[in-house]
Order: sequence, then structure tokens, then C-alpha cells
Amino acid sequence: MELKDIVYNITPINDDVLEKAKEKTSRLIMPYRALGYVNDIAEKLCAIYSTLEPKIENKGVFVMAADHGVAEENVSAYPQEVTCEMIKAFIEGVATINALARLNNCFTIVADVGSLCDWKNISNLQKSTFIVNKVKNGTNNFTKQYAMTRKEAIQSIMIGFDIANKYIHSEKLNLIATGDMGISNTTAASAIGACITKNEVELMTGQGTLITDEMLKNKVLIIKKAINLHKPDPDDAIDVLSKIGGFEIGAIAGVILAACYNKIPVVIDGLISTSAALLAYKLNPVTKQYMFAGHLSKEKGHNLMLSYLDLKPILQLDMRLGEGSGAVLSMPIIEAAAKIITEVATFEQAQVSKSNL
Amino acid sequence: MELKDIVYNITPINDDVLEKAKEKTSRLIMPYRALGYVNDIAEKLCAIYSTLEPKIENKGVFVMAADHGVAEENVSAYPQEVTCEMIKAFIEGVATINALARLNNCFTIVADVGSLCDWKNISNLQKSTFIVNKVKNGTNNFTKQYAMTRKEAIQSIMIGFDIANKYIHSEKLNLIATGDMGISNTTAASAIGACITKNEVELMTGQGTLITDEMLKNKVLIIKKAINLHKPDPDDAIDVLSKIGGFEIGAIAGVILAACYNKIPVVIDGLISTSAALLAYKLNPVTKQYMFAGHLSKEKGHNLMLSYLDLKPILQLDMRLGEGSGAVLSMPIIEAAAKIITEVATFEQAQVSKSNL
Repeated sequence: MELKDIVYNITPINDDVLEKAKEKTSRLIMPYRALGYVNDIAEKLCAIYSTLEPKIENKGVFVMAADHGVAEENVSAYPQEVTCEMIKAFIEGVATINALARLNNCFTIVADVGSLCDWKNISNLQKSTFIVNKVKNGTNNFTKQYAMTRKEAIQSIMIGFDIANKYIHSEKLNLIATGDMGISNTTAASAIGACITKNEVELMTGQGTLITDEMLKNKVLIIKKAINLHKPDPDDAIDVLSKIGGFEIGAIAGVILAACYNKIPVVIDGLISTSAALLAYKLNPVTKQYMFAGHLSKEKGHNLMLSYLDLKPILQLDMRLGEGSGAVLSMPIIEAAAKIITEVATFEQAQVSKSNL
Repeated sequence: MELKDIVYNITPINDDVLEKAKEKTSRLIMPYRALGYVNDIAEKLCAIYSTLEPKIENKGVFVMAADHGVAEENVSAYPQEVTCEMIKAFIEGVATINALARLNNCFTIVADVGSLCDWKNISNLQKSTFIVNKVKNGTNNFTKQYAMTRKEAIQSIMIGFDIANKYIHSEKLNLIATGDMGISNTTAASAIGACITKNEVELMTGQGTLITDEMLKNKVLIIKKAINLHKPDPDDAIDVLSKIGGFEIGAIAGVILAACYNKIPVVIDGLISTSAALLAYKLNPVTKQYMFAGHLSKEKGHNLMLSYLDLKPILQLDMRLGEGSGAVLSMPIIEAAAKIITEVATFEQAQVSKSNL
């Protein structure tokens, strides 16, 4: 399958079911829409699955990792080796995303889609599913040249799509989350965000791993420089990804497409994942209908990305970790929404008196 | 045991462990405090349990129900029978709190501590643990006389304490939540909130089950009338509860005291539960150290109650249902916090490079 076929075959969620789900909510034994956003989530699930009794069966999180040429511009507080070190931590099951996935019974797939790591001597693979399918060893420094070729951009999306598509079927996943790892990837994500949402770079760029104010100034300049140099076309996702993106960002966009293609909801994590969601949205705006925003990150610019996509975050906990942590943490709320609209009785069923008004 | 003994025996959480937990957080493989409020929750759990490896074992929710004399003042959109009808729904396992408790594996205890219901013909008790221990059949209309006597106020607190204390031990619960049911109980809760936080009644009083603007005006007047008539002493929780409270509110205060007494965390639900938290706080301010605010309710006044207690809500989902729904829905976040500080590796353990800064 080619990317164009996938994009073309993503179709809207079921509006009829959405209306019926709203009507169902109004009959549940509670004051009118007393669960607020949880009611909205439940109804969106109904429309995605095309049923009034949605059930979350199996959950999965796809953590996409890669390295970034722009790391040489001193935009992160951490050395570039941390990408590989954290991938190893994911494989060993000792990182935050592992703890969260264990708690929430969420199948974890970690994929290296373009790091600088050498995996020849890797031994401990049992604790999570680890895939190495690199576009190549890190992107180019996009202040000097395009981050990747157009062909590589498409390849990165397809790698993500294929991985997610495979596990959605083999593990019967019907709720998936996106996650990321890659030193300096907030620089790429903020660049994509500024380009697509057309907000000022200053508004879209934050402290990432907690860089100094001086480094933040430099990070903003670097993003401006790249955008001015390459002039990515905001309406051409592949152009944006190839010029100022990252391999894991492309792969996350592919994961999102796989969810939409299979008509299951996808929970978007923080800044990096949402920059990928912007790309997916530009490939086909219908993708937005399958997205939930797991949380509002503390990272600057994330709120503006979510506003652009008109997505309301489920959690607001001042997190800014990535790895898929905010997305997986929000999954119990999504499961609760499904459970409530499926299992709570109506006024008629439970013989509860209705409002006098 | 008497109430004074319980209150006297509630002691502060472990400050030494709190400091050590903060230090531990700084060593976990993530940018400094990258999990925001989740890090704070984890550290508070450490201090409550007095361990750096907190583990949530068994969870329980205590739904306290009662009726209110002030219901005759037309302050709710629903007829008073709904209190009994909803208790029946809880017993049958078909209400929102049941669906949430099933999902989160949370033991559910429903207690009628003062409704108008007749339970002679109740048959279906298997699906949740149901207790009938009434102070009496509903409070008095507090626009005309005290809601209850001082003795009854203490009795309602002790009923809640005894129930929670019993199940904390028998079910080995180490995380509990509070919930409520009682038509017109937002009127009592707002009255308590206005009295204790000393905010204007208008700021503390909302639409409850979605009453009209006209009814809301009347609700505000009624609360003002009761406070002016009885002049409850904001520093005397028993005085406040007896004059303008409710039996389930007293019982929830007792549930909170049981958590503190047993040194386990208690998740406070919305407006009603938080009014009970205000009473517990006035009985002994240390109780606050054991409280988590499950969510910020959409109901007016709840934010001011939480501010008074200096509690930051975990969820903000525009819910306004009660039953313990917001508290139980937040439990997975609390469990995640415990899991993370217990299971995530340190930089040293995982051999991950530290920040260069």
C-alpha cells in the first residue's frame, strides 16, 4: 500500500451514531450532561466505533524514537546519547512509559526509526516489543540543509503506519496512543508547529528538557533560520516534514494514520506527538475526528497546536516528558467514558424520576 | 471511641519522607520534575504512607446518602424520591459510580445515613455493599430550624467514621474516595462553604442539578436566610454541620477522618464532599495533608472551597454529578504517581546521562 492510498481511504466517523449517542447520554440516570467532557468523549467513541456500546478491548502505545541533526546546535540540556540510553531504558521496562503501560495494561511497542544507536549487542528484548526499522541514522541539521529527502519523509510515515497497522491487528488493539523519544525533537516539533499553525516562533517554542533562557533564545533563532531558509509549505505535510521534521515525527504521523485507517481512536501525547498530528491533519483533515488529546503539556506552543486542531486536552497536569506518558495516563478516562455510556442505566430502566423542569 | 479521641489522634504526614521523595524524583530518568503535578502527588503519597515505594493495594469508595428538609423549599430540579431511587440504582450496580468502580477495581460501599427511604422490601443487595445506619429520616428544613441537633451531627460523623474504619481494615483499603447522594444537598454544601470560607453566598451557590435562574436566586436567598437566622460559628464544625448541614455530609467528614486516622490518602469528590472536607479541616487542620482533590467540579463555589483548603484538583472535566464519580475517576492518576516513583529507574541505575546544565 502507498501513502496516498492510505490517506485517501480515511473516512469520517459516524455522524448518525454521534447524534444517537448524544440522545442516549440525555437518558442516563444523571442530571443533563452532568459528566461534562466525559460525556463528549463517550459520544466521540460511539461515532468512531459506530456503536452505542463502545468497549475498549486492548490498548497499545507506540513510542517512536530517532535522532536529530539539529542537536549539534546546542538546543537540548541533554547530550545526544540520551536518545539511545532512553530507548534501552524502554526496552528494559524501567522508564515512565513502562510503569504507566504496566499499570494501564497497555501493550508497548518501541521503534527505532532513525537513531544513531548501534543495536548489535542488544540482548534484553523481552520486556517490551522493540523494532528497529531506521530510515537512516539521524536527520540532517535543518539549519543547513533539509532534515531529510521527500522520499525519506514518506518512508518515515510508512514505517510508522506499517508498525501500528500490524500490531493493531495482531494484538486486536482498539485504542492506541503515540509517544516519542529523540534528543532535540522539541526543536523540530516547534518548527512544524510554527509553520503549520502560522503562529510566531516565540509562541511555539519552549524550554524542552529545561534549557536556559539563553539557549531558548538560540533555539528560537535556529527555528526561524530554518523556516526562512527552506520555506516549507504549510499545506504540504511532506514538504514540512522533509524540511524541518524528524523521523520519529513522521512515524508518529503514520501511527495516527493507521488508527484512522482502522477506525479506532488515537490518543495524542504532548508537543512532539501533536506536531505529528498536525502533519496527519494536513494529509487528511478527517484524521482529527479520530484523535483525542491526552493532555495539555507544560511545553510552550502545545496549547496553540491543540487549538489549531480544535482538540480539548483530557488532562492538565503540567507534564512535559513525552514518551507517550500523557497519552497513556489519560487512557483510563477514555475507558471510563466508554464504560459509562455502555453500562449506566437510563431513567426508564432504573425507574428513576426525571427532572421536574 | 469518641469523636474527640479520633480528632486528637490524627497526626501529620511524614515531612522527612516528603523531602526524601522530592530528592528521589530528581534522580528519576526524566528532565527535572517533568511530570509536574504527578510528581507532587507521588511525593505526597510517600509522605502519607511513610515510604519511598508507595503502592496502592486496594481501593474503596464510600457513597453516603441522606435526605434534606430544605428540599421542600424548591431548590432542586428533581423530586425528593430520587434520593431513594438513586440509592437503589447504586445497589443494583447501574449508576455511574458503579461503572467507574468496576473499571477501576474499587470496592463500593453505599450507606444510607439518613434518607426517607423504606428498605423493608429491598432484595437485591449482592452487587455492592449496602449499609443502613440512619441518624434519622432526613434533616429538618434549616430555613426554619437547625438541620439537626449537635448530638445528631456528631452521630452522623461517627457513623461515617465507623463504616470507613471497618472497611479500611476488613478490605485492606489503602486509598479511599468519598461520594454522596441526597436531593438538595448542594444547598447544604454551598451554605457550609459560604459559612466556612467566608465568601459571598452568591459565589458559593450554583445550579446543582440544573435549576433555573429563578430557582437559583431563591436558593441563594434561602442559604442567606439560614445563615442569618442560625449564625453558625465557622470555627466550630459541629455547630456548622448541625445548623446548616446534612447527615451524609457529616458522614463523609467521618470517612475523611477515618482515612487520616489510619494514615491513608482520601480522594475528595466535588462540592458536597468538599464541604465535608471543610468540616474535617475545621475539626483538625492536619486532615488536609491526607486529602487529594479528585477533580474541579463545574458547580459554582467548588473552586473557592478547594482554594480555601489549598488543594489542587487532579482532573478538570466539567463534571458535576457527585456519587464519588470525580474522585474514583482520578484514582488511576494517583496509582500512576505511586507506580512511577516506585518503579522508574534513576539515572545511575539505568546509566542514562544527566543534563549538561
